[in-house]
Amino acid sequence: MAEVVLLDLLPSSFGMRIRIALADKGIEYEYREENLLDKTPLLLRMNPVHKMIPVLIHNGKPISESLNILHYIDEVWPSNSPLLPSSPYQRSHARFWADFVDKKAFFFYKHHIYDSGKGVLMSRGEHKEEAKKEMIQSLKLLEGELGDKLYYGGETFDSMDVAFIPYYCWFHSYETLGGFSVEAECPKLLEWVQRCKKFESVSKSLVDPLLAFEYVLQLRKRAGLE
Amino acid sequence: MAEVVLLDLLPSSFGMRIRIALADKGIEYEYREENLLDKTPLLLRMNPVHKMIPVLIHNGKPISESLNILHYIDEVWPSNSPLLPSSPYQRSHARFWADFVDKKAFFFYKHHIYDSGKGVLMSRGEHKEEAKKEMIQSLKLLEGELGDKLYYGGETFDSMDVAFIPYYCWFHSYETLGGFSVEAECPKLLEWVQRCKKFESVSKSLVDPLLAFEYVLQLRKRAGLE
Repeated sequence: MAEVVLLDLLPSSFGMRIRIALADKGIEYEYREENLLDKTPLLLRMNPVHKMIPVLIHNGKPISESLNILHYIDEVWPSNSPLLPSSPYQRSHARFWADFVDKKAFFFYKHHIYDSGKGVLMSRGEHKEEAKKEMIQSLKLLEGELGDKLYYGGETFDSMDVAFIPYYCWFHSYETLGGFSVEAECPKLLEWVQRCKKFESVSKSLVDPLLAFEYVLQLRKRAGLE
Repeated sequence: MAEVVLLDLLPSSFGMRIRIALADKGIEYEYREENLLDKTPLLLRMNPVHKMIPVLIHNGKPISESLNILHYIDEVWPSNSPLLPSSPYQRSHARFWADFVDKKAFFFYKHHIYDSGKGVLMSRGEHKEEAKKEMIQSLKLLEGELGDKLYYGGETFDSMDVAFIPYYCWFHSYETLGGFSVEAECPKLLEWVQRCKKFESVSKSLVDPLLAFEYVLQLRKRAGLE
């Protein structure tokens, strides 16, 4: 096994975070794609509690949960461009907003059935409308937090930017199934996306929004929604 | 306003974490009890996103989300007994398990309706039985992770101990409403509780399990379950 191995799934926003961080730090690693319907024994052994990707295996030891892995990467491979801000207050601020993205905003866990991401992509009628409203509200909060800064990290791309930018790949799905335009609702957020995409670490790690949409359609089909 | 202010709610496990950490570090602070049915303008201003306790206000600046606050406290007031382990791997491990407690195990958020804590305390019938099974499974996982160590931090009480010990105050409620005994299911976990309670920072920060139960009964009454 290579020194650094990533167990992952291409359209996963959680996984993209790790791929961006590893690329940003210039860390070589072996990528192993998982199939969530038929998980490998290695994944089950490395993350026996949640059985979920991404898992970073460093020198044979597993680290799970994407924000946790981001912190680990930043601590183990400090570089000229650290991902976490240097002051404790700014660090707590970056953690708070990354956590907000996971708790409130977008994709769906089994344990978060009210997540607006799940609501917009996987439900119908009133529930979907409510989820859409909540999602737009979350996007506006995130746009407000960005304010006039270039990045969430201010002048520099930091851990909160890494945590949030992968969700851009899902915007097309939210817009198509939710019937709204992120650009019309939050134009400054789209400008931030364009700035982030200029980094090679980001552009090469994000999946094509159409591939993400294809994945959503498969999930919807499996759930009897298509 | 004092240099350090804590906006909190006495029976909150999240709040108890912060009270333990502040006591452990010997930090003086002003405690302000909130009423979740009538939140103060200060709380709404300091945590406009989640509007939830605990909020630590340090030199006028707010920090929210209990695990985030724990990290902040440990970074700002390093002492002879740091709460987070010193190696990046051990730190990631402690973060993983603290996150497990929040995600899987116990109390209830609006966004986690499958949480076993909510299921055991606030539901009936089949749903309650399922939640109880899941809770016992989580407790056994946590007991397994403790293994033969004195604390989650090994020989020393660390951040994961701080994150988990407040839930002890709810064990009585889980047992009474769920009809099971934590001690019978997980005897080693109860031994760990007794060891933790020997620290003054812990014993003076934990609320009486009967007070927590009283709080649950109020919530049940409000939900039409009593």
